[in-house]
Amino acid sequence: MFKAVISAETLRDAVEAVSSLVDEVKFTLSENGVELKAVDPANVAMVSFRLNSEAFEYFKATPGEIGVDLVRLADVLSMADRGENVTLELDEENHKLKIGVNSLSYTLSLIDPSAIRKEPRVPELDLPAHVILPGAHLRKAVRAAEKVSDHVVLGVTDDPEDQFYMEAKGDIDSLKLKMPGAELLGLKPGKARSLFSLDYLADMSKAIGKAQEVKLEMGVDYPLRISFKLGQGVEINYLLAPRIEQE
Amino acid sequence: MFKAVISAETLRDAVEAVSSLVDEVKFTLSENGVELKAVDPANVAMVSFRLNSEAFEYFKATPGEIGVDLVRLADVLSMADRGENVTLELDEENHKLKIGVNSLSYTLSLIDPSAIRKEPRVPELDLPAHVILPGAHLRKAVRAAEKVSDHVVLGVTDDPEDQFYMEAKGDIDSLKLKMPGAELLGLKPGKARSLFSLDYLADMSKAIGKAQEVKLEMGVDYPLRISFKLGQGVEINYLLAPRIEQE
Amino acid sequence: MFKAVISAETLRDAVEAVSSLVDEVKFTLSENGVELKAVDPANVAMVSFRLNSEAFEYFKATPGEIGVDLVRLADVLSMADRGENVTLELDEENHKLKIGVNSLSYTLSLIDPSAIRKEPRVPELDLPAHVILPGAHLRKAVRAAEKVSDHVVLGVTDDPEDQFYMEAKGDIDSLKLKMPGAELLGLKPGKARSLFSLDYLADMSKAIGKAQEVKLEMGVDYPLRISFKLGQGVEINYLLAPRIEQE
Repeated sequence: MFKAVISAETLRDAVEAVSSLVDEVKFTLSENGVELKAVDPANVAMVSFRLNSEAFEYFKATPGEIGVDLVRLADVLSMADRGENVTLELDEENHKLKIGVNSLSYTLSLIDPSAIRKEPRVPELDLPAHVILPGAHLRKAVRAAEKVSDHVVLGVTDDPEDQFYMEAKGDIDSLKLKMPGAELLGLKPGKARSLFSLDYLADMSKAIGKAQEVKLEMGVDYPLRISFKLGQGVEINYLLAPRIEQE
Repeated sequence: MFKAVISAETLRDAVEAVSSLVDEVKFTLSENGVELKAVDPANVAMVSFRLNSEAFEYFKATPGEIGVDLVRLADVLSMADRGENVTLELDEENHKLKIGVNSLSYTLSLIDPSAIRKEPRVPELDLPAHVILPGAHLRKAVRAAEKVSDHVVLGVTDDPEDQFYMEAKGDIDSLKLKMPGAELLGLKPGKARSLFSLDYLADMSKAIGKAQEVKLEMGVDYPLRISFKLGQGVEINYLLAPRIEQE
Repeated sequence: MFKAVISAETLRDAVEAVSSLVDEVKFTLSENGVELKAVDPANVAMVSFRLNSEAFEYFKATPGEIGVDLVRLADVLSMADRGENVTLELDEENHKLKIGVNSLSYTLSLIDPSAIRKEPRVPELDLPAHVILPGAHLRKAVRAAEKVSDHVVLGVTDDPEDQFYMEAKGDIDSLKLKMPGAELLGLKPGKARSLFSLDYLADMSKAIGKAQEVKLEMGVDYPLRISFKLGQGVEINYLLAPRIEQE
């Protein structure tokens, strides 16, 4: 049993944060909200999100799992205007999700959850350093780095003038972002320097750009954990595997 | 003889309402305004429009016919800014239409009216039911239906909660729009349920979306007549043949 | 030695005015500012610009030459937001240009100036007539002419009602722009009528459209000189060769 009402924009933002990496996902329903964990087809990035019941105008659910094609869900949500709510209602017998937007009601066929790739085990990582910065700032730096390269190094230093840095080296040109400690919203200093694929960061940065603040947890040649909130009760986490740096 | 001044936007809207279905048309000029009737190449949709003289800032014409390539006319009109007027003047000797926009003057070659497909006879139809709703509302529903299917059923029921409905069934998902009688701007109840091609409705809905109110006249497996006004003195009518419903 | 700070928008506009015609250019640095002269690959159009030191927030340079790929420079400048300044600093030893935008710093590899096509000699031309008009007006007329033809005739007459004209004749339709003397911002009457390629005028007209006023100097079957300013201290000149008119 699942019935909920939520702002179309909130749901759209949450869905987009996932659909940039995975198409078909399994939502886990409980009394407390909706959760999801998924890996991208190439096993490089992991995404998990949690829509707490407080993110909804109305929320009622019994524990269960539903398989959803996010591309089609995003397509339906794109029909809602800014400020509109959508109504979600599970039709368990027919394996359908009814989505109401205004006087329109969509019937979305669900996917058998057993046909969807198994949920990944989220690894326990002890990431020694972190920085917190505005999402829009990170997005802009990622887009700038894309101009010169396919990869980017993220790192943390002891130098207060250069506390967090991002470096992209192309064949011809290069880019460096330096953020002094004073410009960061939060900082846990420590040794950190790892190389990442800009393709993945670019896919993630659309959602990241909407977050007031985003936390980046890093280590040396270690995965990057990106966590942020989108409005009240929507938590998104990405985990991105490092690439091997060739020097 | 034909000379007229009209708001570029009014003429552009009227031309777009037709050019989504037909490229080359024959305008019939009279003292009272400009008229047109045309069918699309596949004989599925018919469009007629009437620009009454009151739609013009200035209008003077003697009876006659001119053949126009609407794509080129629309292209010229796209150069006018919002709020600008265009001047139209027929050069009968050279078979040209002079179009003035500001200090620019275009000379558009006319098409021999005898080379244009004959005007259709508009069939006399006794459509038992009708609804009136805001144009923007219909446009939105058509765009929503396109997300799931190529065809759509439009119908009228006796149920006040579901007075006018639209149903699109795709291979996987489906959509239903229900409009209670209270939300309609006008209603003539009666038996009506017919299937239509969404391609055509989508082509028409761009112009429909600009109308404050649009009237849909329907029957059972019968054509759909759509009529609306765009501003003062511009009347547009579409007639769309039904498709056979396979169940 | 070269170090300068300039509004990103000013530099972007100046670079775009050139990059629509040439990709790789040689900037000449002096105490007074930055200069450039270049011809397009087909030798039809010439562009020269001058960024006087007063166009900069800060400017310090010793005489020299640097070779720049304008496509990559424009790409970097596109990352700056409206109202932001960029810092330019030459790293002579490594043949790099450092471009700072906010906390981002790009390192752009320079091109060996000797590998760039030699600067053209700007011909001395005695153009008998000129008109001055708003840049946006010329841009609009060029875009309108593109709807009907690939070429356009520009000319000046003695008739005050038709002082400056532009004519485009297509296979089917034609366009005429007539500007009465009273609508021009400046005029030097004289014999002038020449045919030009619309492709080139269209490439130039994006920058021209941003200028408050643009001066067109013309003759009979003679090149067209277009000169305008973009803000304080930015001067742009185009010289466009005429095409032979076939009648």
